[in-house]
Amino acid sequence: MVKIEGTYESEILESDISEAYEALFEEAESGEVGYYFLSEDKDTISSIEEFCAEYDFSSIKNVVVVGIGGSSLGTKAVDRLLLDLPHRADKNLLFLENVDPNEIERNLKGVELSESFFIVISKSGGTIETTSIFKYLMDRFHLTFESDEFRKRFAIITDENSPLDIFAKENDLVTFHIPLNVGGRFSVLSAVGLLPLHIMGYHVREILGGAKMLKESFFAKKEDEIVKKAYLYAKNRKITQNVLFSYASSFSYFNDWYVQLWAESLGKINRDGEHVGLTPVGLIGSIDQHSFLQLIIEGVRDKSVTFIKVEDFQNDLKIPNISIPHLEKTDFINSHTFSELINAQCDATMQSVKEQGIVTDMITLGRVCEMEVGYLIFYYELLTSLTGHFLNIHSYDQPGVELGKRILKDKFI
Amino acid sequence: MVKIEGTYESEILESDISEAYEALFEEAESGEVGYYFLSEDKDTISSIEEFCAEYDFSSIKNVVVVGIGGSSLGTKAVDRLLLDLPHRADKNLLFLENVDPNEIERNLKGVELSESFFIVISKSGGTIETTSIFKYLMDRFHLTFESDEFRKRFAIITDENSPLDIFAKENDLVTFHIPLNVGGRFSVLSAVGLLPLHIMGYHVREILGGAKMLKESFFAKKEDEIVKKAYLYAKNRKITQNVLFSYASSFSYFNDWYVQLWAESLGKINRDGEHVGLTPVGLIGSIDQHSFLQLIIEGVRDKSVTFIKVEDFQNDLKIPNISIPHLEKTDFINSHTFSELINAQCDATMQSVKEQGIVTDMITLGRVCEMEVGYLIFYYELLTSLTGHFLNIHSYDQPGVELGKRILKDKFI
Repeated sequence: MVKIEGTYESEILESDISEAYEALFEEAESGEVGYYFLSEDKDTISSIEEFCAEYDFSSIKNVVVVGIGGSSLGTKAVDRLLLDLPHRADKNLLFLENVDPNEIERNLKGVELSESFFIVISKSGGTIETTSIFKYLMDRFHLTFESDEFRKRFAIITDENSPLDIFAKENDLVTFHIPLNVGGRFSVLSAVGLLPLHIMGYHVREILGGAKMLKESFFAKKEDEIVKKAYLYAKNRKITQNVLFSYASSFSYFNDWYVQLWAESLGKINRDGEHVGLTPVGLIGSIDQHSFLQLIIEGVRDKSVTFIKVEDFQNDLKIPNISIPHLEKTDFINSHTFSELINAQCDATMQSVKEQGIVTDMITLGRVCEMEVGYLIFYYELLTSLTGHFLNIHSYDQPGVELGKRILKDKFI
Repeated sequence: MVKIEGTYESEILESDISEAYEALFEEAESGEVGYYFLSEDKDTISSIEEFCAEYDFSSIKNVVVVGIGGSSLGTKAVDRLLLDLPHRADKNLLFLENVDPNEIERNLKGVELSESFFIVISKSGGTIETTSIFKYLMDRFHLTFESDEFRKRFAIITDENSPLDIFAKENDLVTFHIPLNVGGRFSVLSAVGLLPLHIMGYHVREILGGAKMLKESFFAKKEDEIVKKAYLYAKNRKITQNVLFSYASSFSYFNDWYVQLWAESLGKINRDGEHVGLTPVGLIGSIDQHSFLQLIIEGVRDKSVTFIKVEDFQNDLKIPNISIPHLEKTDFINSHTFSELINAQCDATMQSVKEQGIVTDMITLGRVCEMEVGYLIFYYELLTSLTGHFLNIHSYDQPGVELGKRILKDKFI
């Protein structure tokens, strides 16, 4: 099980806590914010299962997600976390995300149409990176929109009635919808994540189950600690950067997912017209003990640090009992497992950070499995919504990125 | 050529500029700081070339760097940047860095001793991650320190007279030294980077040449703009976060290298006893337009943003002239190259950020080649030293990370 330990000491009142619950319940009940209910959306998962049961994926070697930002980061994060599970399908899960031409060619090297399945994902339907790569794929594989081969190789995930959806309908393409009230960065538990992850063999119902467990507990007002943590982050004006220090290499994309969720949701002009926002920083232990840690310990005291630790790596690889002459001082770790070492490094680093008076907490996963990953995803989504509530902002839009898109278009028209 | 455009307006005096030059010259001349001279160290590069000419690398499929932080990040960065050069050797360059057991096993999958060459890198010689993995390799491949096979398969890079160096000497191992006055995060242009990069077929003398070009210009006091930029970052108290927004996927590890260099060098208690430091943020365009950009545009105005752009991707991959029904609004980009698109996105994003009054500048690489990469590396090292000078700190140590190491040891003894 996921265990979260921390003391979020602050001057929060009981009424602040109640108001926060109510604010989120209101978002959910009014239909304004839909991600709360994704773990209970049985129709979507059933229709995905049905599609996958009918489609013959046995000859598919490459599952290719064409999508950027919220359309790919969550899936990437979950796949990277669960990569070592024995039931993961023996297929490549590829992402066509950036419009860097060298990157596109590198990713498509060796990808044959006959053994590939492409999932084009764009919430609005008109994301320029995604449509450009989509067009390139049509050309590269000599496909026409009318061909059976196109219909066989491509699926679409988008908002209902988006231009892409209308196009898909007219061409009889397999299509799944993102609920209109679920934003891209909150969409990993919708078809956006569920379709590719199900094809990859993951037990997606367990991912949803993990999220649902926390959802129910939160809606029963039993999650005061998350509320307190959000309050601390939002109200302690000294804390402007929130570090997530994950002690396993498999968290690298989860960190990126967290960075997107946090930065894009919380970097806003608030209802009083002030620029607010908290900067997310994603680190990997122990690697970044040799990098960012020095800044945390001796730099400006404007950071909080959350550690993530995996109790059971399900791997008992050991540091052998070998003594390197002249390096006997490293022998203290001999005969211990690597997972003991990395977890002890996590504990030691946390202690050294805590001793500086820096706000820290620890999230411990029993082991990295679907259920715990689902729980963790929903935990961070909730934390984001709550922090946004206390920052007095609208957490679910991204008006700041529109100007750049307009300028881009003007350059070509 | 590397082109840097920005106006670093601030109240810097001519005397501040002179003092900054003099401070760095003094560090260099006194022998306290050695990285300035790495591009002129002909002995090291000659001895590497000599070793590589004698050693038969034709049967080597895997070049494995065993090292963490400064011992691997720079090499990773350069290799990822130059991956597409036609003269790169057809070998795998692998990094054993983290002590995550699943990661170690994943990296070593399919790695046979008979076709591998290991480079164990630790400046101090006693880095616990590196020695632990080193021991594991000895065990995994049934090697003894006395065997010929061990001597054939392993090279060591460390400080002269470190415990690891003494061990290497006693066992007659191929060894290269890091100059004592060159810190780990400033060591990519020493044997640390040059040995693996030379084995991988890169023209390392050109990397050094690029660095030397800027070194000479700086030592001739012709680089006032870098001094002004450092002054602005150090003295403008509103700027606490420095974003590097690189518009090419190949910059991902360069960003990580920058984060380490910046965070570990500049996160310090200054000579007046204050906690100072600037938070580095590494982003990839256009991907992170869908993530962190919203926070830059609408969040707290505590950031500077440097854009990196590649003029010539040496790739003319095009967005084909295909119109997706109902998505005709995306047709403005048809028939343009992907590199035109990504570079226009860079320009448009920069303009949208600039219009907010946020401090921005642009680094343009003509193309990604050894010379320009060497220049860029030295540019960031210089910028770090200068910013450290203006912050009134010692930029070359990392005292903050020692406490955690002691706590770790105590857990096992």
